[in-house]
Amino acid sequence: MTGAPPVPMSATLAADEVLARRRRAGEQVLPMAGGEIGLPVLPALRRRLAAAAGLNAYGPVPGSHALRASAAGYWGRRGLGTDPGLVVAGPGSKPLLFALLLAIGGDVVVPVPGWVSYAAQARLAGAHPVPVATAPGQGGVPDPERLRTAVAAARAAGRDPRCVVVTLPDNPTGTVASPGTVRRLADAARELDLVIVSDEIYCDLVWDTSVPAESPARHAPERTVVTTGLTKNLAVGGWRTGVARLPDSDTGRSLHGRLVPVASQIWSSPPAPVQAAAAYAFGEPPEIAAHVAACRALHERVVRAVAGRFTGAGADLAPVRATCYLYPDFGPLRDRLAHTHDVHGGEGLVRFLGERHGIGVLPAGAFGEPGDPLRIRAATSRLYGEDDEQRTTALAAPDPLELPWIRRNLEQIGAALADLTGSPVTGS
Amino acid sequence: MTGAPPVPMSATLAADEVLARRRRAGEQVLPMAGGEIGLPVLPALRRRLAAAAGLNAYGPVPGSHALRASAAGYWGRRGLGTDPGLVVAGPGSKPLLFALLLAIGGDVVVPVPGWVSYAAQARLAGAHPVPVATAPGQGGVPDPERLRTAVAAARAAGRDPRCVVVTLPDNPTGTVASPGTVRRLADAARELDLVIVSDEIYCDLVWDTSVPAESPARHAPERTVVTTGLTKNLAVGGWRTGVARLPDSDTGRSLHGRLVPVASQIWSSPPAPVQAAAAYAFGEPPEIAAHVAACRALHERVVRAVAGRFTGAGADLAPVRATCYLYPDFGPLRDRLAHTHDVHGGEGLVRFLGERHGIGVLPAGAFGEPGDPLRIRAATSRLYGEDDEQRTTALAAPDPLELPWIRRNLEQIGAALADLTGSPVTGS
Repeated sequence: MTGAPPVPMSATLAADEVLARRRRAGEQVLPMAGGEIGLPVLPALRRRLAAAAGLNAYGPVPGSHALRASAAGYWGRRGLGTDPGLVVAGPGSKPLLFALLLAIGGDVVVPVPGWVSYAAQARLAGAHPVPVATAPGQGGVPDPERLRTAVAAARAAGRDPRCVVVTLPDNPTGTVASPGTVRRLADAARELDLVIVSDEIYCDLVWDTSVPAESPARHAPERTVVTTGLTKNLAVGGWRTGVARLPDSDTGRSLHGRLVPVASQIWSSPPAPVQAAAAYAFGEPPEIAAHVAACRALHERVVRAVAGRFTGAGADLAPVRATCYLYPDFGPLRDRLAHTHDVHGGEGLVRFLGERHGIGVLPAGAFGEPGDPLRIRAATSRLYGEDDEQRTTALAAPDPLELPWIRRNLEQIGAALADLTGSPVTGS
Repeated sequence: MTGAPPVPMSATLAADEVLARRRRAGEQVLPMAGGEIGLPVLPALRRRLAAAAGLNAYGPVPGSHALRASAAGYWGRRGLGTDPGLVVAGPGSKPLLFALLLAIGGDVVVPVPGWVSYAAQARLAGAHPVPVATAPGQGGVPDPERLRTAVAAARAAGRDPRCVVVTLPDNPTGTVASPGTVRRLADAARELDLVIVSDEIYCDLVWDTSVPAESPARHAPERTVVTTGLTKNLAVGGWRTGVARLPDSDTGRSLHGRLVPVASQIWSSPPAPVQAAAAYAFGEPPEIAAHVAACRALHERVVRAVAGRFTGAGADLAPVRATCYLYPDFGPLRDRLAHTHDVHGGEGLVRFLGERHGIGVLPAGAFGEPGDPLRIRAATSRLYGEDDEQRTTALAAPDPLELPWIRRNLEQIGAALADLTGSPVTGS
């Protein structure tokens, strides 16, 4: 029990807790580090959970039939016909991803930059993460050519990569890889005999649909596992619910036979009352669809405003088309930041924004980027209000940027960037 | 993705599902395999969950302050003063146990017989389970002398056992190890420098208190982790909530620093609405305490009646003092069972009771016992009624054995045993 922990603390959750403490101490803080969605639970959804409070049985390990059928319908409406028997629900898509890594076995290709937990989970599963860079604007999808090289090298070194994780839409970059990139990734995965684990937790938060977001399950249906949940679309991260769609193939059925036992030994079943509410939500009745649309529009409005401030300050930013994340690169300002503020990398930038301006963000290093680049991830999802009343108002507002609390938050960001760059930043 | 799964399916959950299918097909079945508690949620508790349905934030990884403070008070009332800062909550005590094994690292001593998931979890964590037999009547606590021998042998063979799991009260035997056994186990663990992980999920279901149930945390406070939850005491297995109490020592604080990061990477935080209800329940207001007492009394009445039938049939049974489990040994009937029924071990006995009598039980082999002994585990927890109305009636009945549905269940058990032994069995 000495030495470093087996994995580091989840950077997003750790940052959230630090900022929450500062807020309790009375400081004016902008929590832009974690990806928690600061929006209220839709009352109709809340009522479904409340009505299910008497459900106390474990139920089937992979989730209730109602939930699995509902999730199958959800994917079916997105062009992915789904057998409910190949759906596995879990207490969050995070534990599902972990159990998938255990069930698949072997080493794991992860995108760089990539969500904080993929590599940590691979290590907990006794595997080696094989990092593969993504191309600019194609976040979440390891570059197919680099994938071939990295897997060949890993195999030559005695490693055993068996799956590649993909994030579509992407966290941390907020970009959506193009159908061409996804297809080439799928081809490479087939060639290399890798299972694709496609984390599509943000799939309903694509607000710029100028380029279609295509799941690798369209291009490599025999080997693609898709995971999603209600955490992001419906802002119920604290409820802990996720679903996985296994491929309808020998690979998928074999994986199902391995995944369900792992789930039975780690978590038994997802929380029963939450399952009942999730079965309702994945059915997408009009009020749910309208709420998701309102959330998506709010994210879009605020992300675009913040993006304009970052680019206005001189940072590079790939086209953000989804989620509530921005991943600006302050490399173009390197000299000024070094000379004026003694800021040389993402870690320094995080300290500068946190200590001088009460703005919590994460350094690129938290997403697996080597060499502490001068880059950060910022989430807009907690800028929408201090309480449920303000947040509900923001969801309904014709122009949320006119709301005083959102305007104030944007001004706080603008002031921080002006201090950073030495000139006023008003956004584009 | 070929070959056996990394772990077998949890035997209890698998058996539950098989029997549920038979029941849906219209068969009269007695589900005595799984340990799910077939009792309704106390209305006051259900209301707390319903009222908390709007809570959608992750909150702190180890659980809310309210839940941790409440759990600390719960242990304090049991003579184990507890720092809320050393309490970690999770989505069930099962994932907490798994995360503890990952955080502690090394190999894991498990009691034999022992709960189905300890050894499976150890394997998923990349560890080797080191099985150590318990003495008769001292279920759940590896025999201290055998522990010394087994750990020495494991270390000589290059293994690295770092913790010993204890179940108190015990599943599968329903016994409670004596304070003497617990003290000697604690001494041995200290000598061998092992962390003790004491699974006390059944701690409020001790109904025969003629011998005190003492946690190893009393005898080795510096190295004992205690886990519990609401699953068994309050019949809310489907809610998924558990808590761990880490030792107030350097070992405990170091373990906390390893456990919380593991939790952050596997499950983020326990379901927020459930946390709110759990904080209320661990506070043990009078209505909760009265409900637990009623559940305990019902378990006692039915377990004693079933125990009488098993011993009346000629099986050996150590003194059952807690839980809803019985672990009868049909060894004394070996010749008759072999000649009359071609039943030679626990597996055969399970088939006999299931196929001929619709009674689901588990073989001793599911609890790690080698050589398929002629022994089974039977749970009474789903004999109390077919629906919440019958179960509520059972909880309030002056003599639940007089209720027609419980009497019928006992008769079905009696008939099966009479068939097995060739003579009437009415219980003692």
